[in-house]
Amino acid sequence: MKRRDFFRNSSLTAAGLALSPMLFAADDNTSLLLTDLDKQAKNIIFLVSDGMSIGTLTMADMHLMTTTGKHTTWVENYKNGRFKRGMMDTASSDSLVTDSAAGGSAWGGGVRVPNGSLNMGANGEKHTPILQKFKNEGKKVGCVTTVPITHATPASFCVVNKSRRNQPEIAEQYLDLKFDVMMGGGDQYFSADKREDKKDVYGKFTASGYDVVKSKSQMNVVLNSDSPILGVFADDPLPYTIDQNSDAELQNTVPTLSEMTAVAIAKMKNHKEGFVLQVEGGKVDWAAHANDAPGLIYDQIAFDEALKVALDFAIEDKNTLIIVTTDHGNANPGLFKGRKADENFARFQTMKKSNTYVMQNLHSNLTSNNLTEMIEYAQGFAISKEESKIILDYVEGLNEKELQDYNKMPYEKYAQIQKKYTNVGFGDMSHSADFVECAAFGPGSELLTPFIKNTFLHNMMLKAVGITN
Amino acid sequence: MKRRDFFRNSSLTAAGLALSPMLFAADDNTSLLLTDLDKQAKNIIFLVSDGMSIGTLTMADMHLMTTTGKHTTWVENYKNGRFKRGMMDTASSDSLVTDSAAGGSAWGGGVRVPNGSLNMGANGEKHTPILQKFKNEGKKVGCVTTVPITHATPASFCVVNKSRRNQPEIAEQYLDLKFDVMMGGGDQYFSADKREDKKDVYGKFTASGYDVVKSKSQMNVVLNSDSPILGVFADDPLPYTIDQNSDAELQNTVPTLSEMTAVAIAKMKNHKEGFVLQVEGGKVDWAAHANDAPGLIYDQIAFDEALKVALDFAIEDKNTLIIVTTDHGNANPGLFKGRKADENFARFQTMKKSNTYVMQNLHSNLTSNNLTEMIEYAQGFAISKEESKIILDYVEGLNEKELQDYNKMPYEKYAQIQKKYTNVGFGDMSHSADFVECAAFGPGSELLTPFIKNTFLHNMMLKAVGITN
Repeated sequence: MKRRDFFRNSSLTAAGLALSPMLFAADDNTSLLLTDLDKQAKNIIFLVSDGMSIGTLTMADMHLMTTTGKHTTWVENYKNGRFKRGMMDTASSDSLVTDSAAGGSAWGGGVRVPNGSLNMGANGEKHTPILQKFKNEGKKVGCVTTVPITHATPASFCVVNKSRRNQPEIAEQYLDLKFDVMMGGGDQYFSADKREDKKDVYGKFTASGYDVVKSKSQMNVVLNSDSPILGVFADDPLPYTIDQNSDAELQNTVPTLSEMTAVAIAKMKNHKEGFVLQVEGGKVDWAAHANDAPGLIYDQIAFDEALKVALDFAIEDKNTLIIVTTDHGNANPGLFKGRKADENFARFQTMKKSNTYVMQNLHSNLTSNNLTEMIEYAQGFAISKEESKIILDYVEGLNEKELQDYNKMPYEKYAQIQKKYTNVGFGDMSHSADFVECAAFGPGSELLTPFIKNTFLHNMMLKAVGITN
Repeated sequence: MKRRDFFRNSSLTAAGLALSPMLFAADDNTSLLLTDLDKQAKNIIFLVSDGMSIGTLTMADMHLMTTTGKHTTWVENYKNGRFKRGMMDTASSDSLVTDSAAGGSAWGGGVRVPNGSLNMGANGEKHTPILQKFKNEGKKVGCVTTVPITHATPASFCVVNKSRRNQPEIAEQYLDLKFDVMMGGGDQYFSADKREDKKDVYGKFTASGYDVVKSKSQMNVVLNSDSPILGVFADDPLPYTIDQNSDAELQNTVPTLSEMTAVAIAKMKNHKEGFVLQVEGGKVDWAAHANDAPGLIYDQIAFDEALKVALDFAIEDKNTLIIVTTDHGNANPGLFKGRKADENFARFQTMKKSNTYVMQNLHSNLTSNNLTEMIEYAQGFAISKEESKIILDYVEGLNEKELQDYNKMPYEKYAQIQKKYTNVGFGDMSHSADFVECAAFGPGSELLTPFIKNTFLHNMMLKAVGITN
């Protein structure tokens, strides 16, 4: 493997410095360069629970502990000392509170960029995404996610683009990159029927030698193929885990994050030069935005199961660096104190559906009794007449299109009502500046220091596989 | 020093186990016993930022960074690798969400007890508080806090009591213990004029050989006295740091947490057998309960300054174990995303007064203009006519007594209004179950493992000074 010095290009770093002097201490990556590597990693699996506040990790762990007596893989590996642990400052170049594009770009390109941007600085500076660097070094590379594969977090490891919103364009950028595994949702950005420009992006992927798959069974059929794989399993994001768990058809047709992770590893693990994989639990972030507590807890656990798949592989393989973290907090959920806090929290054990399911099943003809019954079926508690009236007042007069519009629906109000029955509350419907968890295992994990900036992980990954001076 | 085996008394542990089996894994303290001590500690300073959610530490750090370019002592010592770091599960014996009495008792008595109780189990089992253990070993011991010295967190290191509410009784229990330094607020529990039973508890402390001091200058006069010290500087808690900073009289008469910490160390540091001190930033918790963001941020910084005093001593002394942590999250505050998040967060730099000050200056004759002017003076932003009306509607018709009643006043509503101007929001007005930060420095810090239960710290302290088998 050629050793290259990606650190000497200090003009890129200087751009970040000018934008946010307080947040860009000079010693940030230097300490990394001074640390000796015990052993070089061949593979990296970088797992992101997108928008995971500490309360999300805590509640997922407490839910598992109170139902199974076992910790999450994440916490268990803190407890048994296997994971090295760091706290991470997630700011972007233009705000203390990052979005997923800038948060991912700090890892992906190694430089803080403005919110909304994918590896592009405020003045158009382009920062080479890390999977391009690894691909150029001969490794296989890929991303799996529960949201559109063109979404900010996977895109931040793959492409340079002025805006994360350009998802149709990002789908085409992926075609040029020819990465080895790209799986998630986002059919609307690939399908000729759905794209505004009517381009058949799927067709181009097929023509370019890809296995294009759209269901779990199709994915499993090409498991042993040597071709690169594009897997798109939903129009937009994949379903919430809690909704999928109670829907046989979704279980049959849509792979879980663990299943995609296992396939991605299987397809790349025998490559002589190694592989680098990003795994994103993207709907953890979506659930936090929606203040959707059951969606949040079950998707965090699904992410944790994918972490277990990756960790089990890494333990056996011995040449794989695992990094598990989040790009930012979101909504700062918590299980809050109250006489019935534990009893109420236990309601999540028997819930069948996400709040999003409840919102999507609202319509203007619903009676108060209908609504109460629907919620009782979905989540196991009976709201009061007054509470059902609050919800129904919101939807009264909305047309069919508006009823499917996330921004029109009473997600926040419903979460406030639900809090009385679960003791789980939220501080907002967007990202927080909170310092977040970061953990590492395997060769290179010794590089992780107890407090880092997000950009540190870019250089840590490069150094772990020996790309440094 | 006699070595005693406090771990063999496993019947105490079993009580916790029966109440909360999932939360009390058998290996919890065992791992501690298996770790060898590099060097025995002579002194321990245990610092508690009460009710500190991760957002509180983050916002204090970001406030300092954006104003001074420097991290908090806490974060700086993560960054420079000086602190060992652990994540802590804070549950009590009867809930996933602890209160400060049970949270403190887990450290103080080493056993989880029901919420509200001080080192007493559900069936009346008594667990010897750690400062009694250390006093019996010949050490000097003490507590300093910004809330009443009889409050739950200091009390949990000192006494056994069925209820934290028994503060008048706890004041008398302190008399019997004859600890070396007890300083904070709580005049109402010591003064014959204010106690219901009209007992002159101060008089008894004086008769028992204490220096009893009620102001900063009195405290400094007895700095070199060999007598134990009782310092009580306020009727209830000490003022919020932000309010004290803008009030010359309070600055002259009331010591800060740093000043009390420095005095406590100075009075005990030359003791041959060493000392153990608890330092509590108690109003961090009170500010979180009140959703009082300026109160919260400035008191967290004041706590951090006390940490610096303790750490500077420990670095020079080389025989002192520092533990810095919190007993539980509270309200899960966060700086949340928005177009003006950074600009709005910068408002805290010039704020003069806490939200509590604003609430305490509300009265029913206030006009909308008066209120707007008062808030503009106190916190630097002008609320709208509609917002002032919301606040004034709350206080209309309240009598003088009700206006001073925390529970009657619109703290939550005001915080929601303030959020528009600061981007700081809260998820609740009480404690959260969040896993929390725990850090350690000095001899014995090597015992801290990456994920612990709160009870672990009790045994860690004992072992650090050599009290174990």
